[in-house]
Amino acid sequence: MKNNKKEQKTKKFPRKPSSNHQQKDNLKKPNLYGLHAVREAWLNENRIIHALYMTNMGERQFDEVVIKAKTMGLRRPEPIILDKAKLDKILPKDAVHQGVAVVCAPLEEMDVQDFIIRTHDKKSSVIALLDQVTDPHNVGAIMRSASAFGLDGLIMQTKHAPALEGVLAKTACGAVDHIPVAYATNLSRALEDLQEAGFTTLAMDERGDKEIGELNLGNKIVVVLGSEGTGIRPLIKKKCDVLTRLPTGGAIASLNVSNAAAVAFYALTS
Amino acid sequence: MKNNKKEQKTKKFPRKPSSNHQQKDNLKKPNLYGLHAVREAWLNENRIIHALYMTNMGERQFDEVVIKAKTMGLRRPEPIILDKAKLDKILPKDAVHQGVAVVCAPLEEMDVQDFIIRTHDKKSSVIALLDQVTDPHNVGAIMRSASAFGLDGLIMQTKHAPALEGVLAKTACGAVDHIPVAYATNLSRALEDLQEAGFTTLAMDERGDKEIGELNLGNKIVVVLGSEGTGIRPLIKKKCDVLTRLPTGGAIASLNVSNAAAVAFYALTS
Repeated sequence: MKNNKKEQKTKKFPRKPSSNHQQKDNLKKPNLYGLHAVREAWLNENRIIHALYMTNMGERQFDEVVIKAKTMGLRRPEPIILDKAKLDKILPKDAVHQGVAVVCAPLEEMDVQDFIIRTHDKKSSVIALLDQVTDPHNVGAIMRSASAFGLDGLIMQTKHAPALEGVLAKTACGAVDHIPVAYATNLSRALEDLQEAGFTTLAMDERGDKEIGELNLGNKIVVVLGSEGTGIRPLIKKKCDVLTRLPTGGAIASLNVSNAAAVAFYALTS
Repeated sequence: MKNNKKEQKTKKFPRKPSSNHQQKDNLKKPNLYGLHAVREAWLNENRIIHALYMTNMGERQFDEVVIKAKTMGLRRPEPIILDKAKLDKILPKDAVHQGVAVVCAPLEEMDVQDFIIRTHDKKSSVIALLDQVTDPHNVGAIMRSASAFGLDGLIMQTKHAPALEGVLAKTACGAVDHIPVAYATNLSRALEDLQEAGFTTLAMDERGDKEIGELNLGNKIVVVLGSEGTGIRPLIKKKCDVLTRLPTGGAIASLNVSNAAAVAFYALTS
């Protein structure tokens, strides 16, 4: 290993200064792509990044982010410039990468106890809990809305949680690096723990007695959302203190789950 | 032609009674697919349907809808049963068709004057206007929310409007057959016409002075939403009576346009 390192060092100098702007082989599969997702990861001091791949087009747009990270003193690898065809090839088909992609480590995992500690001294807090919402577009959009409305975190079941990368991260538009996510093996238990810590647990359910605007809840709320087809599972619903619905009606009364989440976050935080 | 028809007629009887349950060639390209989208089209008396294709799985779920249409006296073609591979082949790649698809005519087009006439005697009305929002997933989700919150219609620019079919209709979950859509060649002119008819025009804009919950508007409102990248175009924004923002903040302050629409529809109708 030491020898290899030496060899690399001695090889470095005959190269042109722009050597890291040449196309390299052995490209790794990026887990984040798209300007917003990559930008927020690149500027997140808690995110370890192994490689940044950019097209010339991507570089023009991303250059200021690279400079900003330098002024922040963040440790980042040198960007690697490659052509669009090569970037397309190492990303999923039809990925809207906007010319930038990174290979990075996932963020440190949290659990429900971390959320309880983090919100202990706060006067008010809203946390979202997803029961088997697994579509990456929906989870990504929910993370984006959760971040925009200042939620303190998102809880998902360890078993069914989609990875916070790829199209999910692209849809989240950078929120993956801003909204804390905790994983729980047992969501019922997670709700119990949060109840003990002073949270009111609120299930979004079309058959809820009261509309969300009519509720008078405490200052700490966990809002629970289920999957679109089947809704919240009965055992999880049973654990909730309140069932509430959105004021919708007509032939198509149900919303897409990320839209329902956005409305709930708005109603609970404004 | 007459001869052909005769031939068909004479050929008909040697067939088994379940002839229309056999696989046929010359299948047309369906424009709607998915249980909800096809159900609402099938039960919409204003929708002309040319063909219904179902897999066996689809038939099991859709059978009650076929019966319901019969009891409603709707004129509908006999369903054609085919295998999944054949249905996959005539639909776009990765279409989540759930075993049902129809070939149908588009609904009758409306214009802004139709909306003005339809809402003339109503005490309150909310209409959405999309300025260059063209992503079919977003437009579909917006139609679903518009229907759920009881909006009176949706206005799009003739030139940039996506067709109300395929993945848009699938995402709209049946709302395409419930929420009226009007097309305008000139959106500024459409806003003027609606203002003259007593509507307040409200632009959703991050730089709006007031938050949407603080507004005191009239009972007839047009809510204007722009595309995610560039927002509402300046000339359209200028025509709006009020600029308003959602109470979002933090690093990722903007919402996905369909989520922003859902929150706005909720705030304006509840």
